[in-house]
Amino acid sequence: MIEKRIAEILRSGQPDETVKVQGWVRTKRELKGFAFIEVNDGSSMASLQVVINETVPNYSEIIKKVNTGASVEVDGVIVASQGKGQRIEVKAESVQVYGDADPEVYPLQKKRHSFEFLRTIGHLRARTNSFGAMFRVRNAVATAIHQFFQERGFLWVHTPIITASDCEGAGEMFSVTSFDLNKIPRNKEGAIDYSKDFFARPTYLTVSGQLEAEVMAMAFSNVYTFGPTFRAENSNTSRHLAEFWMVEPEMAFCDLKEDMDLAEAFLKHIFKYVMETCREDMEFFNERIDKTVLETAENIINNQFERITYTEAVKLLEKAVEKADVQFEYPVSWGTDLQSEHERYLCEQLFKKPTIITNYPAQIKAFYMRLDEDEKTVSAMDIVAPKIGEIIGGSQREERLDVLQRRMAAQGMKEEDLWWYLDLRRFGTVPHAGFGLGFERIVQFMTGMANIRDVIPFPRTPENAEF
Amino acid sequence: MIEKRIAEILRSGQPDETVKVQGWVRTKRELKGFAFIEVNDGSSMASLQVVINETVPNYSEIIKKVNTGASVEVDGVIVASQGKGQRIEVKAESVQVYGDADPEVYPLQKKRHSFEFLRTIGHLRARTNSFGAMFRVRNAVATAIHQFFQERGFLWVHTPIITASDCEGAGEMFSVTSFDLNKIPRNKEGAIDYSKDFFARPTYLTVSGQLEAEVMAMAFSNVYTFGPTFRAENSNTSRHLAEFWMVEPEMAFCDLKEDMDLAEAFLKHIFKYVMETCREDMEFFNERIDKTVLETAENIINNQFERITYTEAVKLLEKAVEKADVQFEYPVSWGTDLQSEHERYLCEQLFKKPTIITNYPAQIKAFYMRLDEDEKTVSAMDIVAPKIGEIIGGSQREERLDVLQRRMAAQGMKEEDLWWYLDLRRFGTVPHAGFGLGFERIVQFMTGMANIRDVIPFPRTPENAEF
Repeated sequence: MIEKRIAEILRSGQPDETVKVQGWVRTKRELKGFAFIEVNDGSSMASLQVVINETVPNYSEIIKKVNTGASVEVDGVIVASQGKGQRIEVKAESVQVYGDADPEVYPLQKKRHSFEFLRTIGHLRARTNSFGAMFRVRNAVATAIHQFFQERGFLWVHTPIITASDCEGAGEMFSVTSFDLNKIPRNKEGAIDYSKDFFARPTYLTVSGQLEAEVMAMAFSNVYTFGPTFRAENSNTSRHLAEFWMVEPEMAFCDLKEDMDLAEAFLKHIFKYVMETCREDMEFFNERIDKTVLETAENIINNQFERITYTEAVKLLEKAVEKADVQFEYPVSWGTDLQSEHERYLCEQLFKKPTIITNYPAQIKAFYMRLDEDEKTVSAMDIVAPKIGEIIGGSQREERLDVLQRRMAAQGMKEEDLWWYLDLRRFGTVPHAGFGLGFERIVQFMTGMANIRDVIPFPRTPENAEF
Repeated sequence: MIEKRIAEILRSGQPDETVKVQGWVRTKRELKGFAFIEVNDGSSMASLQVVINETVPNYSEIIKKVNTGASVEVDGVIVASQGKGQRIEVKAESVQVYGDADPEVYPLQKKRHSFEFLRTIGHLRARTNSFGAMFRVRNAVATAIHQFFQERGFLWVHTPIITASDCEGAGEMFSVTSFDLNKIPRNKEGAIDYSKDFFARPTYLTVSGQLEAEVMAMAFSNVYTFGPTFRAENSNTSRHLAEFWMVEPEMAFCDLKEDMDLAEAFLKHIFKYVMETCREDMEFFNERIDKTVLETAENIINNQFERITYTEAVKLLEKAVEKADVQFEYPVSWGTDLQSEHERYLCEQLFKKPTIITNYPAQIKAFYMRLDEDEKTVSAMDIVAPKIGEIIGGSQREERLDVLQRRMAAQGMKEEDLWWYLDLRRFGTVPHAGFGLGFERIVQFMTGMANIRDVIPFPRTPENAEF
């Protein structure tokens, strides 16, 4: 294993120190009798400059091989750099080339490549500056998430990926089966004989771990999920993935207000953590991808989120239309769901910061959200953020058995499918609440990337399951 | 949300402090004019004793309701406890019962329930002492894993769950499809028309993220996966799950020796972390589940693991059989895989500690493992541990393009299916290595639980996808 990563050498290496550098060549500059190579090991955006001169054994053979993409091990000494842009560099004493990368065929030559092109080489794109920064930030966001919850005594719970309930209604589901699709067994009546399938019933990929997280919250009070979820929707957009990671905290003895407080603290924590640990990468995104990335992060860290009810939001939107401050494609009226354009107007134009919209009409929200006293709205909340729209959706859950049964019946749901979920209301029910964060959405939001396919190592989208 | 968890109150609460306690009643003891209830909120094995006397408003109504399983909020004052077994208790000033739990129907009454029975109430079992301890330990193991790798600069990478490659050969796979299984479209030739499926090709649930982790290691040097993996094998045993979580670190510039060093340090770290953070739960397992749990943990933390080659292992096993020290069901001979009974003899009887067996015959190991100089064995390693058998499997990977191609051909694999994996050897290849840890296996090992279904919240096994 690498003894000392390049990030550490760049940070604290001192002249005259001997070092072993292992990594991949990003660029080579040949001069008369010596050459500079930039070596990167993925630990930081910055590469380490290595000077190879003719005293290095096998100089001319090595120089032919240390092209972009080649892997090298350099033993050398740190020297103060004469050039601009770096404090130190390494003077090579010996160089070993583990693997070369033929410049005629290696696709990542020193030039800008389009993200579209890079998607076709998903096995190599992590070696570019953009994707290097991306996956370091992604890791930092994930780490911030665990840190936030673990520090507060939440348990990470692993809810099932394969599920037999298709009743959450959050979207179309993929089927999971051990059947040979060419020979699906049928019973005498000609129906599929699920008794012969692995789980002896139809099964699907989960769209959410929330219902199971509620089970765990009724024992541990505060829990969170962080795992993959799936949608079989044929949405070929820059914001949809068929497979994505979701974070779903669930808190017992918690109401909507505390749910919002936690969600706001959570988002602030993530941004702070990434700004502290990935500053260089975030500056790269700000410079190359979206000039507002740093400003947006500061906005989130330093401002209190706006909080308004759905009913107030509709009034504000109606007023804006009336005054011709804005034109919407979709009309606004109480009782219909807010469209992305409406949410964006509120957080981008009107409030210019993340906005929490609460208490939506019951008929446009899920059955498990707690019915408000007026019986018209539910204790739901959506956090919408400038430039990306909805980033968090949450609610206080319906903890009253009779109300929940009524809501399920109204939506045509069968109690026997969720007998265990109803049991949570039969035995020691408590007010509880939670929310869901789309992990890729926040990484996209944070880095300013235009397409969500570029914030996950191997995106799954319609007609694409490569690598 | 709960302001102060019961674990914290028990640890640092002082007499005369006023507290709000929120949780679920574990037991009730009624005496003349007052009652004791034990309240648990999942933050610790120990419950908090609350004394309710007649001065509490609605005393008699409350006493009827605070049965096992009921949820309560108690406002009260900490007092030094007169009874044995606890330093402090809470004298209630007011009690609110959020939800009761009818003793006639609530399944978790105060008595021992079999784990078999508890599996049928997977939505409630987390409220028992055993599963409380279990899921706190599970969370601690998960946290220890992230901590270990993050401290060492590894990136957590999310490898895909849905995959189009069925060529890793690690086991039977589940199919994933958006087809209506009742109407699978067919083309003119009568074959399944996969162009109409979501991904326009057959897709499966992943059995391992290793190959994709290698992609990421070739950019970031040190990475790890931690996510769900699947096997569609019809194994109805106490050690198999159809859905389980796996941890797979992958290191560039790393050989088998360093791979073993890391794996050993990793296991020691996990055990140390859990012993430090979940002492009370571990003592519970030691007392109630398996009397060797603490001893085994100390053994792992304090001993250097034994390291022997497969060839040496076979010799030792042959010698043991010859001397009639042991009888095996399966014969031992060089070239066949070690059976569980052989591994257990080595680590339990002979060495009495975790044992790393290395350099297995090439023909019994996967195509990607690095061929040794003798061309007979590969640089693989398995760590086998007393009482559970194989817990970690790893290897140095074959980084030489021509050797890898030869190995794939020998196993009848098509290069075009893994063109991107071969590319990693074409462009900047480096020696690299990694290993896989079955997450549930280590939790099972650590807690001494007999059945792996009892170490994951909602187990998926043949004919079972409940909850």
